[in-house]
Amino acid sequence: MSRLTLESFLKERKDQLETKLPEYVVALDAPSILKESMLYSLQAGGKRLRPMLLFATVEGFGGDYQQSIPVASAIEMIHTYSLIHDDLPAMDNDDFRRGKLTNHKVFGDATAILAGDALLTYAFEVIVTMNNSEVEPSQKLRLIAELAKASGPEGMVGGQVADMEGENKSLTLPELEFIHHHKTGDLLSFAIIAGAILTKANDNDVESLRAFARYLGLAFQIKDDILDIEGSQETLGKPVGSDITNEKSTYPKLLGLEGAKRKLDDHILTAKEYLYKVKMKHEKLEMLADYIMYRDR
Amino acid sequence: MSRLTLESFLKERKDQLETKLPEYVVALDAPSILKESMLYSLQAGGKRLRPMLLFATVEGFGGDYQQSIPVASAIEMIHTYSLIHDDLPAMDNDDFRRGKLTNHKVFGDATAILAGDALLTYAFEVIVTMNNSEVEPSQKLRLIAELAKASGPEGMVGGQVADMEGENKSLTLPELEFIHHHKTGDLLSFAIIAGAILTKANDNDVESLRAFARYLGLAFQIKDDILDIEGSQETLGKPVGSDITNEKSTYPKLLGLEGAKRKLDDHILTAKEYLYKVKMKHEKLEMLADYIMYRDR
Repeated sequence: MSRLTLESFLKERKDQLETKLPEYVVALDAPSILKESMLYSLQAGGKRLRPMLLFATVEGFGGDYQQSIPVASAIEMIHTYSLIHDDLPAMDNDDFRRGKLTNHKVFGDATAILAGDALLTYAFEVIVTMNNSEVEPSQKLRLIAELAKASGPEGMVGGQVADMEGENKSLTLPELEFIHHHKTGDLLSFAIIAGAILTKANDNDVESLRAFARYLGLAFQIKDDILDIEGSQETLGKPVGSDITNEKSTYPKLLGLEGAKRKLDDHILTAKEYLYKVKMKHEKLEMLADYIMYRDR
Repeated sequence: MSRLTLESFLKERKDQLETKLPEYVVALDAPSILKESMLYSLQAGGKRLRPMLLFATVEGFGGDYQQSIPVASAIEMIHTYSLIHDDLPAMDNDDFRRGKLTNHKVFGDATAILAGDALLTYAFEVIVTMNNSEVEPSQKLRLIAELAKASGPEGMVGGQVADMEGENKSLTLPELEFIHHHKTGDLLSFAIIAGAILTKANDNDVESLRAFARYLGLAFQIKDDILDIEGSQETLGKPVGSDITNEKSTYPKLLGLEGAKRKLDDHILTAKEYLYKVKMKHEKLEMLADYIMYRDR
């Protein structure tokens, strides 16, 4: 797929998602300050990488990506809640994200905590109430089970706790991988697995995609670490070199910059090997894997 | 039902629940500090009123309460997460709850926020993965839809935001009722409705129970306000008179102490009228309604 095709693929789907996503919050019968706070962070932009992975999986199995927009919205709600809580003074204490003030800087800590809680809870409601006659009750239950596991104590929240515990410590590679598997990888994997569940992929294909997603998630994080060294502040929208300043354990720190780049190549290669085992059209997921490797932000 | 019968009813079910509840967390493959923090607050005691309402409803329809322990556990996880987040410095800034240090005083704010997030997410996983062949997929989906609505932006979280917005303001009775319906009432209602869903009660009965629960929830809050004036600090395990010190809008403030007591009587009476419309054994729910009215803590 050419660069131009990639860009139009991403743009059309991102526009669709970003039109539908706020509608879920606007429709709520809830205090307006809560809705404003939820919308503020949901609409703060970002790559929408998880929804794109979901859409690419659905389309790879011959499905219509528009049918999966409710699940994509739920994923963005979970991702967004995690960013709001991570940015709090009690956690990372960040004032800016993607060049905008963080939620608590605009709405105060209490409302930010509650907006996060609301987005997390609402994500499950959006999936359970999605009005799609083609999605059977058993599929919805699988989606909810996978999403809860990916984002809960054994998933994203567990990874975040491990990350906090690892601060100012020298981590081993397995410790670093544990953190990233869970903190970033599990929700990213869910996006891909959700696409397989929605299109009724068989169990073998689901497990191959799970392995694909696992290596893709690690690759994503390694690229992040590399961009913190080699990226441009202007393109990234955040200061570079902050990992070094914060004495954070990173792949380049453990493996050296060249070692980290080799690891990135290896993981993308291994991810693709798993992808090719799946009976589907691989093109769009392959393209997103390349995008993760070559992106400059 | 005699006082002795009530006490043995509550004790047996509370013991069962409090044995099973921690097992869910112990079984998790998650960082140990996260599990400790979750367990600390889950095991901090309390009346377990919501599980008791669930059990009484299940038994009123001829079901076995033990089958509903996973749902009771999920409800306690949601209730507990809401207490952890409410107690945070950014919210109510409470150092003690039920005579014990609050979660963030023991584990720090960051872990407390994440333990709350973990409990909220895990509650959905516990319901979706409950291993009970008698519960059909459609019942699980109804439980999840009701729980998400009751605890999310249109439910408990929305009520909490409205409560914060109402601080240091003189509220009208409808405003006060909006807050309590959502902040306390919605999860309490869910407990009762979940019992009806699990025993496949018909839609009419579910709606009558929803009305029963609505009045019961308001009655519960009015009694809380009255206890803050008339209760004993020793029995309550918290200082009395704090609502007056905090200039909080309460029922006694709006209606006078006698007016609040009349309102409590009225609501319990109306609740019972709805209860009697339901084709079930009313005895245990009736007993819990009386308990809510006459309790001294």
